[in-house]
Amino acid sequence: MEYRILKNVKGPADVKKLSESELVELAAEIREALFNRTTKIGGHFGPNFGIVEVTIALHYVFESPKDQFVFDVAHQTYPHKMLTGRAQAYIDDEHFRDVCGFTNPVESEHDMFYIGHTSTSVSLASGLAKGRDVLGKKGNVVAIIGDGSLSGGEALEGLDFVGEMDTNFIIVVNDNEQSIAENHGGLYKNLEELRNSGGKCENNLFRAMGLDYRYVEEGNNIAALIEAFKEVKDINHPTVVHIHTQKGKGYPLAEKYREDWHYAMPFDRETGKHLHDYSGESYSSIFAEKMLDKIEKDKSVVVVTAAIPGVAGLSQEVRGKMGRNYVDVGIAEEQAVAMCSGIAKNGGKPLFVTTATFAQRVYDQMTQDVSLNSNAVTMLLFSASIYGMGDATHIGISAMSMFTNIPGVVFLSPTNKEEFGAMLDYSLEQNEHPTIIAVPNDGVNSAEYEVARDYRKLTYQVCEKGEKIAILALGDFFAIGQKTAKYIEDKTSSKVTLINPRFASGVDKELLDELIKTHDVIVTLEDGILEGGFGQKIASYLGSKDVKVLNYGFEKKFYDAVPAPVVLEECRITPEKIFEDISSC
Amino acid sequence: MEYRILKNVKGPADVKKLSESELVELAAEIREALFNRTTKIGGHFGPNFGIVEVTIALHYVFESPKDQFVFDVAHQTYPHKMLTGRAQAYIDDEHFRDVCGFTNPVESEHDMFYIGHTSTSVSLASGLAKGRDVLGKKGNVVAIIGDGSLSGGEALEGLDFVGEMDTNFIIVVNDNEQSIAENHGGLYKNLEELRNSGGKCENNLFRAMGLDYRYVEEGNNIAALIEAFKEVKDINHPTVVHIHTQKGKGYPLAEKYREDWHYAMPFDRETGKHLHDYSGESYSSIFAEKMLDKIEKDKSVVVVTAAIPGVAGLSQEVRGKMGRNYVDVGIAEEQAVAMCSGIAKNGGKPLFVTTATFAQRVYDQMTQDVSLNSNAVTMLLFSASIYGMGDATHIGISAMSMFTNIPGVVFLSPTNKEEFGAMLDYSLEQNEHPTIIAVPNDGVNSAEYEVARDYRKLTYQVCEKGEKIAILALGDFFAIGQKTAKYIEDKTSSKVTLINPRFASGVDKELLDELIKTHDVIVTLEDGILEGGFGQKIASYLGSKDVKVLNYGFEKKFYDAVPAPVVLEECRITPEKIFEDISSC
Repeated sequence: MEYRILKNVKGPADVKKLSESELVELAAEIREALFNRTTKIGGHFGPNFGIVEVTIALHYVFESPKDQFVFDVAHQTYPHKMLTGRAQAYIDDEHFRDVCGFTNPVESEHDMFYIGHTSTSVSLASGLAKGRDVLGKKGNVVAIIGDGSLSGGEALEGLDFVGEMDTNFIIVVNDNEQSIAENHGGLYKNLEELRNSGGKCENNLFRAMGLDYRYVEEGNNIAALIEAFKEVKDINHPTVVHIHTQKGKGYPLAEKYREDWHYAMPFDRETGKHLHDYSGESYSSIFAEKMLDKIEKDKSVVVVTAAIPGVAGLSQEVRGKMGRNYVDVGIAEEQAVAMCSGIAKNGGKPLFVTTATFAQRVYDQMTQDVSLNSNAVTMLLFSASIYGMGDATHIGISAMSMFTNIPGVVFLSPTNKEEFGAMLDYSLEQNEHPTIIAVPNDGVNSAEYEVARDYRKLTYQVCEKGEKIAILALGDFFAIGQKTAKYIEDKTSSKVTLINPRFASGVDKELLDELIKTHDVIVTLEDGILEGGFGQKIASYLGSKDVKVLNYGFEKKFYDAVPAPVVLEECRITPEKIFEDISSC
Repeated sequence: MEYRILKNVKGPADVKKLSESELVELAAEIREALFNRTTKIGGHFGPNFGIVEVTIALHYVFESPKDQFVFDVAHQTYPHKMLTGRAQAYIDDEHFRDVCGFTNPVESEHDMFYIGHTSTSVSLASGLAKGRDVLGKKGNVVAIIGDGSLSGGEALEGLDFVGEMDTNFIIVVNDNEQSIAENHGGLYKNLEELRNSGGKCENNLFRAMGLDYRYVEEGNNIAALIEAFKEVKDINHPTVVHIHTQKGKGYPLAEKYREDWHYAMPFDRETGKHLHDYSGESYSSIFAEKMLDKIEKDKSVVVVTAAIPGVAGLSQEVRGKMGRNYVDVGIAEEQAVAMCSGIAKNGGKPLFVTTATFAQRVYDQMTQDVSLNSNAVTMLLFSASIYGMGDATHIGISAMSMFTNIPGVVFLSPTNKEEFGAMLDYSLEQNEHPTIIAVPNDGVNSAEYEVARDYRKLTYQVCEKGEKIAILALGDFFAIGQKTAKYIEDKTSSKVTLINPRFASGVDKELLDELIKTHDVIVTLEDGILEGGFGQKIASYLGSKDVKVLNYGFEKKFYDAVPAPVVLEECRITPEKIFEDISSC
């Protein structure tokens, strides 16, 4: 591919010089560049293919960075990056790693925020507008938000707030009729009516929020988009430009199977098939199978997701089988957790499955709506781990510092698949307290030690009894604990005590009181930020005792796509380093 | 007052037996009972006086607890409590303490949840409905939500989700045209249009969310309400009943000054004047004055609140003077924090002021929208303390375990008013990191030691230099630290080291390394739950060193209206107990 036009676009100014036909050619080249990158290293697919024309028109009409764009989630900004000096990262394989998957001010002055969570664009942009106004600056502020993101509380709060602003503010609603999976929520009926009526139906969600409104049916037609954007440029009040686009536009498979092609792993362009094999046992498949079985036997079980069923192996087929015992609330984590509290109150067995990074949205709901009411909600956290870490926007290593300190919440960290299953069984059967279960991330292991069925009493499991040194290795760091024990035993010829704490949310005081009679050093290992986590509870409890405590976990910082082995080495979480530390304390 | 009818209402069944005129008499008696309690011990005033007729009509038409009511915030449930067997707590002064200020399942089977935060009713009730349906139960589910609560993200997520439900669900929108202060947000224009048109205007927010809708203009007319509720009882799909009520109905002062009378301190019924004097210097007044002064000098400063300006001394007069440098986003904490990030990005100096309990809503926004972007947002937390604690629904002792573990967030704990002012100045001047400042709660003290101006480097302040024992006393527990040091010095004739850590979010390693050379015991004191807080960071850092660490803070549990001295005693946070512990370790 030659990229005749794209290669000469060094910034938005170069877009403005192009003729209408050249803009159309540019769109084709951008799609080729998208193919080049995603076929080889994967990435968000459907969102980027759908927004090519919108992005071109935005940069054609507005003057970034004087005019400021805030892309919601920012996973649809590959075309934006190409038009703002970063095309190399898509057309030249050597430069793939120059850019991250989201907007990032460190990369470019055209990126306003480093983000990756949904539903934030309107609120963030409202701040840009307020800052602009109090400082007497000029320029347009434009939030670009997908239909899927509209159901999030922060987005709805933002729309409502902006509806009262008396200043320039433009909200581009990029409506491709799809969230990650299908959309859920009453407002999507209104979007459909708006699309069907060309924006002229009786009720209008956006007008009801106090916003001006216009509709563009041809959301992949550059000329129509340019006309619409010119109309709203420099507008003196908040307005919505509702645009109807085609998700995955330009790749028939992606246009048809929109959920499968929201994100793509490396694939063959001809066939659409993955280049690598991702089948095989995983905690997602174990979970999905187990829950199907449970629901078949017990109609009070309800599995809830907030728009990310795929994370938990809940394919369209599995969801279909679960019927009304499966609920996708759309992107609306607060709704998900509060609803689970109500389900439990009325005798149901709710389980909310999400990722650790998105669980950050429900701190208040887990505290007030759930735990204060002692309602037995189960929350399952995927990716609460340094393993498989990606961008800092999605890292899940704060799960323990966030949730293990909330009164009444029992936080369980299984070390293998049998224990995972037993904890899941326990959590759904009891009706006394909320439970959070952190899914292991370092592959699927089988139990080597006995697995308990009952987790009512907070007790740690002593797996190996030794002396002098005890290692408390939590969750998927149990394997590191095993390796470390073995390493130390080889070095010292003395047996090390190995403990599976199971509970991240509390201290087994009885066991620790016993341990310190025969041990000089207690080591804790956890797959999370050290501050506020598991190990510090142990150090605090033993602070006044005659024993040394060494806590291992991560630093309190935003790790950004750092490979797990590098972090482990940095934080001295290796058998060698741990032994070194023990020896010198 | 005789309470002829109310005294015979032992439960909802007794309400159903009354004639129309008796129901009207009952309303008058309920208002008398409200006066009896609120004049003497205070409480939420306007919300309860406004909802008397709605509550009577609900219990007349529906069959609680088979039909389930979920009151949003639940601060308007005094009439509900009176009609469900708890009238004594309002008419008999001896029984005032029988009930808390919110619904609570421990009190009555007619209360579904123990809640106190806004905007949760629709989501919680959606769970009740889902639980009912999967278990094949019968009955109506009714969420009762005020107009002010509608702007909250959880409420909007809930409305949207329910708009897709295909089952019985009733949402009573109790519209008294007022939040705590005035309403803010575009949707309130729509509510106004709906009221003005008798529910018949072109756009309808609720219909745009997929909900059925009807309007009742006379929201304080029992007969009209009974008719409306009978119409929707056993409905087979979700519907809104939008009711127009008068906040503070029945007390002219409260009808006129709705913000002042949202919550009342004990008052004289004739004059409306407080029985006690609440004037005098407070951190609220100090803050309001300081910010007025700042804004006068610097137009880039923006003070933001989410509907609770009164907490921070931001009276209508102060707000008026602040002009466009003051923003009330309505009940919408996520919007507030994300907006602040945008303001900072564009060069403004945003400060969000809230209470610790409501800050639970912005964990994700402080992490992703703010800190990951290194935007210099200041968040000021009132009531992050055991002092002045009320119901468990509003306790703020989790502030440190929540926020001191987020990467990049600097959490400052001033010990007196000069330090508070200096930290505020610093925070607004720098543009490198978000700052959280916990306002002291144990009265207003003046500085006895030098106050720093610059908090760029994390360093603790050594106030008194001693040996053997060092006390690190954080924030408003510094006074306890001082007392404890003096007590120990009296007992041991040995000088104690007294430290003001200032930073709750990190460890001054250099100082601690130095300290342990001459000290055997390090004591930490903090006004918060111990787990995940300040002291455990110290215990962890010193875990491998030859020194004892004693952490003092609160247990991880939901303290419910326990007086501070009781908690302090329970947690051994007194000079005597601390000395006892030091002596025995």
